[in-house]
Amino acid sequence: MSLVVVGSMAYDAIETPFGKTERVLGGAATYIALASSYFTHPVQTISVVGYDFAESDIQIMRDHEINLEGVQIKTDEKSFFWSGKYHNDMNSRDTLVTELNVLGTFDPIVPASYQGCEYLLLGNLSPDVQRLVIERLDKRPKLIAMDTMNFWMDIALDSLHQTIAMVDVLIINDEEARQLTGEYSLKRAAKKIMSMGPKFAVIKKGEHGALLFHQDEVFSAPGLPLEEVFDPTGAGDTFAGGFIGHVAKTGDVSFDNLKRAVVYGSALASFCVEKFGPERLLGLSPEVIETRVNQFVRLANFDLT
Amino acid sequence: MSLVVVGSMAYDAIETPFGKTERVLGGAATYIALASSYFTHPVQTISVVGYDFAESDIQIMRDHEINLEGVQIKTDEKSFFWSGKYHNDMNSRDTLVTELNVLGTFDPIVPASYQGCEYLLLGNLSPDVQRLVIERLDKRPKLIAMDTMNFWMDIALDSLHQTIAMVDVLIINDEEARQLTGEYSLKRAAKKIMSMGPKFAVIKKGEHGALLFHQDEVFSAPGLPLEEVFDPTGAGDTFAGGFIGHVAKTGDVSFDNLKRAVVYGSALASFCVEKFGPERLLGLSPEVIETRVNQFVRLANFDLT
Repeated sequence: MSLVVVGSMAYDAIETPFGKTERVLGGAATYIALASSYFTHPVQTISVVGYDFAESDIQIMRDHEINLEGVQIKTDEKSFFWSGKYHNDMNSRDTLVTELNVLGTFDPIVPASYQGCEYLLLGNLSPDVQRLVIERLDKRPKLIAMDTMNFWMDIALDSLHQTIAMVDVLIINDEEARQLTGEYSLKRAAKKIMSMGPKFAVIKKGEHGALLFHQDEVFSAPGLPLEEVFDPTGAGDTFAGGFIGHVAKTGDVSFDNLKRAVVYGSALASFCVEKFGPERLLGLSPEVIETRVNQFVRLANFDLT
Repeated sequence: MSLVVVGSMAYDAIETPFGKTERVLGGAATYIALASSYFTHPVQTISVVGYDFAESDIQIMRDHEINLEGVQIKTDEKSFFWSGKYHNDMNSRDTLVTELNVLGTFDPIVPASYQGCEYLLLGNLSPDVQRLVIERLDKRPKLIAMDTMNFWMDIALDSLHQTIAMVDVLIINDEEARQLTGEYSLKRAAKKIMSMGPKFAVIKKGEHGALLFHQDEVFSAPGLPLEEVFDPTGAGDTFAGGFIGHVAKTGDVSFDNLKRAVVYGSALASFCVEKFGPERLLGLSPEVIETRVNQFVRLANFDLT
């Protein structure tokens, strides 16, 4: 069922203890669209790139049958660029460079063919832009999920609250949940998030997995213990892509199905970190994904008798 | 089936953001024995206390039908004393005072009635003392599990390795696993631990739950999201007590049953942190424990269809 994905398409320079790259395909919408393309079609993308965005990278998206009609190409500006360096524990990183470039004046266009979409994933972006997309859809989608980050809590908190109030699922990481709510307990943080509007709160905990909250229910998906985390960049976006991809594929927005969506998101994210940038997300097969998801079943499953 | 528990019985002074106590019952063996007493009898304790150990605290143990024949009372020394202060996040703490007192010269006595025990839990103690207990048992128990901490890695690493080589299950936290093995990845750390002797490695991750490794298998038990963590003191020991208690109750040392043991240990630990010291562990009923364990089932459970 039709899914619209909004976010950046960009280039990243990444340094981890395992290596360094000066320029690799990145951006929230890139990771989200690639991940969700393994579950559902069409994946209709809204983004903006500059004159430096390589045709070969556009082709990568096309190869995954991702619809790029809503991707604007600005011929007088460069693409969004981010550079970061991970610490030895891979759980924390320093942002070295953020060049907004085309994102600084991003006015999202919703193509007519995207109208009537059933699922909307708002990747990390200015909450003003995220809200504009919702407002430019003629009909409210069946489920709207959004990601955000601490940056917007620092500089655009009021706008962020307005956008959060309009969505069904907020997907953020543990530190962001604590910053947004002022609560250290993730259970309390989730309650506060749900009092802001969303019916579901998904709190990502990196290597420790993810929590899904809904009313008084909570589900904990484990992180898959890995021998090597090569590059965590994009793992959170990939999680969101697998999550919304599974929801769009099944058309089921029940708590039980969103639990599955969290597991599929976790499985896709576990691939993402195995190589630099989105490389590991490019050639997945349904069988490889199913095998990985079954690892999560064995990892989490127990019975009392 | 018979279980022997070895460790300290002590007094703690604890400060958390929620309050402060100058003297509360503590010690690894105290928490382990209390937790395991909800699953199995006899719980045969080996420990040492000083002249200051209150009769009322002995009575607490007796009320839980804990066998104290192996607990020495030294009339010329004080009990082990530990004082710590938790940081605001409750995940880290500073040790303010450690007075070994009676533990400094602890020579563990194994009463004749403890011989032939089937399960042995070596709580955090000098690895020399842990090993002495194993050596003083006429017959090797069916399953030996041990806890330890970074302190012994710093000052008695060779002895620690000797003890680890003699046990079936090593239970440590994530930071300790990393320090012991020099591996950041917990999967790699667990492999190294299993190459040191133990068939099972249990890695505790505090609020993030616990991992159980065995051969190529891994199980992840979630942490129960709590609104309030009042005092984490003793949670790791309580986990170990619930774990070994379930194993001793069922007499089953299969991987599947050790998964359940990790869940029971996690459930008991989730009670422990709700009040200061061991208070919350004193009046549990089988029904209350079963209800909590079923929360873990709902928390972790998902199916793919």
